[in-house]
Amino acid sequence: MSRWALGVDLGGTAVKIAVIDEEAGLLDHERHPTDVDAGPEGIVAQIAALAFSLYAKAKKRLGEEFFAGIALGAPGAVDSRQGILSYPPNLPGWEQYPLKDRLLEVLTRDYAMDCPLYLENDANIAACGEAVFGAGKVFDDFMMVTLGTGVGGGIILDRKLYRGPSGTAGEIGYMTVDYSGKSVHAGVRGTVESLIGKKSIVAMGLDIYRANPKRDWSEEFHGSDLCKLSPRTLEKAAQHGDPLAMEVWKRTGGILGVGLAGVVALMDIRKFVIGGGISGAGDLIVTPAFRQMKASTLPSMHEGMEIVSAELGNRAGVYGAAALCFSSIV
Amino acid sequence: MSRWALGVDLGGTAVKIAVIDEEAGLLDHERHPTDVDAGPEGIVAQIAALAFSLYAKAKKRLGEEFFAGIALGAPGAVDSRQGILSYPPNLPGWEQYPLKDRLLEVLTRDYAMDCPLYLENDANIAACGEAVFGAGKVFDDFMMVTLGTGVGGGIILDRKLYRGPSGTAGEIGYMTVDYSGKSVHAGVRGTVESLIGKKSIVAMGLDIYRANPKRDWSEEFHGSDLCKLSPRTLEKAAQHGDPLAMEVWKRTGGILGVGLAGVVALMDIRKFVIGGGISGAGDLIVTPAFRQMKASTLPSMHEGMEIVSAELGNRAGVYGAAALCFSSIV
Repeated sequence: MSRWALGVDLGGTAVKIAVIDEEAGLLDHERHPTDVDAGPEGIVAQIAALAFSLYAKAKKRLGEEFFAGIALGAPGAVDSRQGILSYPPNLPGWEQYPLKDRLLEVLTRDYAMDCPLYLENDANIAACGEAVFGAGKVFDDFMMVTLGTGVGGGIILDRKLYRGPSGTAGEIGYMTVDYSGKSVHAGVRGTVESLIGKKSIVAMGLDIYRANPKRDWSEEFHGSDLCKLSPRTLEKAAQHGDPLAMEVWKRTGGILGVGLAGVVALMDIRKFVIGGGISGAGDLIVTPAFRQMKASTLPSMHEGMEIVSAELGNRAGVYGAAALCFSSIV
Repeated sequence: MSRWALGVDLGGTAVKIAVIDEEAGLLDHERHPTDVDAGPEGIVAQIAALAFSLYAKAKKRLGEEFFAGIALGAPGAVDSRQGILSYPPNLPGWEQYPLKDRLLEVLTRDYAMDCPLYLENDANIAACGEAVFGAGKVFDDFMMVTLGTGVGGGIILDRKLYRGPSGTAGEIGYMTVDYSGKSVHAGVRGTVESLIGKKSIVAMGLDIYRANPKRDWSEEFHGSDLCKLSPRTLEKAAQHGDPLAMEVWKRTGGILGVGLAGVVALMDIRKFVIGGGISGAGDLIVTPAFRQMKASTLPSMHEGMEIVSAELGNRAGVYGAAALCFSSIV
């Protein structure tokens, strides 16, 4: 028999929870709308109830004695040692909240569950998921970059999560690559996220389409109008060969490549796994990113450079959480 | 009695060698012109002879049994595990050379010396020196940045030298901060070194002075002419209050600050030690660098941020080399 764990992915729209077996992978999976209005206490109650229900079902089949624990990935600043979640985006009213201790309390009090509990930042969790179950399995050292509303990252060094002295490492989205440029995000000029966060990709698309008026663009978007441009429509249009949409992804990949080159220079990490909600364009991003990463580094740094697409998709969160329970990655 | 070691700093102009006591610090120090024309074999012979001569003198006083070894810092790409130095700048004809093995051979054959021998990149060595003997003593985690002909760096994590998977970590000079700008160095656009390497600082000075012609500039430079502008003259002029020279250092510090902000975001390192041949302007660089580092990071990353000047000056190399022999830093 192998060990199993519960992985929880807390987001602003959904709570995802899964039973993950160390060898067989995902065995059971649920997705529920996050009870945002209930506030932290309500969400803790929601997670505890979901966790107990899946646990109770699974333990008969998998054996209570092989249960390795529960781990939780959350957006925002996570102090994993203290178990505190601070200012999670899309979860109003949380500020600083001792999520780990409160969840443990409720699990013990209401469900008599006493098990290891881990809390970690969602970008770090995604990196752990890819490291143990996904595209990062083959790498000892790599950086996971998540492209979504924001640009996040998690660093694995020698098969361990690298958190940094204060636990905030991996914020590639906040690296400045264009300090004399115009783009600003969260008050900082020229960061990777200011250039290729979701909003900026859409804005880039609008600029490119408006600068290139042509009669047949509506075909590319199957009748949708330009105002509805989204990363998803840009992805589809590019996959259908639309040159303007392809240009958007080429530029996006290029800027990503400049950021990755900085990681190569500073940390000597040369393997990258690209995931996140808007990484679906795949090679349309990866190919120009690789080209630019090479162009922005010294030849002596090129050996072993690699960029691959993530493998776990939107289940990286639950897989990664479970990975914390099994492995020595943290 | 405390341990002692020989620290060697191999440069394109000079070989510096010192006897360093673990507690008392520098006890003896010599500086000789590098015998560049003699090629690798000749320089190995030179280093071996110098090392033996200092060793022979020192062992009577300090005790042979307390001798901890010899360490050597060298410019260029160093593979410290294999002991290979590749393409050191300013040492023509070296290409890839097994410096450690060859030096060990000559020391054994010609001087019957059999002791631990370490080889490390000079920027990493400087970081180790500051970590053990200088401004980095108080920090568990910090980055040493050396401003000179180039911009180099060495990273100390949890009081250990961080080399990265291939041993090339710390190259902050090759991080891109201005990818849409005009400056290029070593074929890469917008890197920190392209903007504030020695040549670029001089060029920046020339631009600023030429754009601001004024009758009394010659006073600032004590009669020297603009064509002789150097970091040293800019440093002196700024210390005498010349606003144009101060502007050069302000811009230099600002760009450095953008680079440091990237280190904060990616690695969560918040302490920096600034050294190197053209860091003499001190606070004229550090103050704007700190201001810009803050402006280019999120408020949640500001806690504990600090930039200090290096303490070991041009002896960081020999101190750092000796530190390798004493400590568990590598």
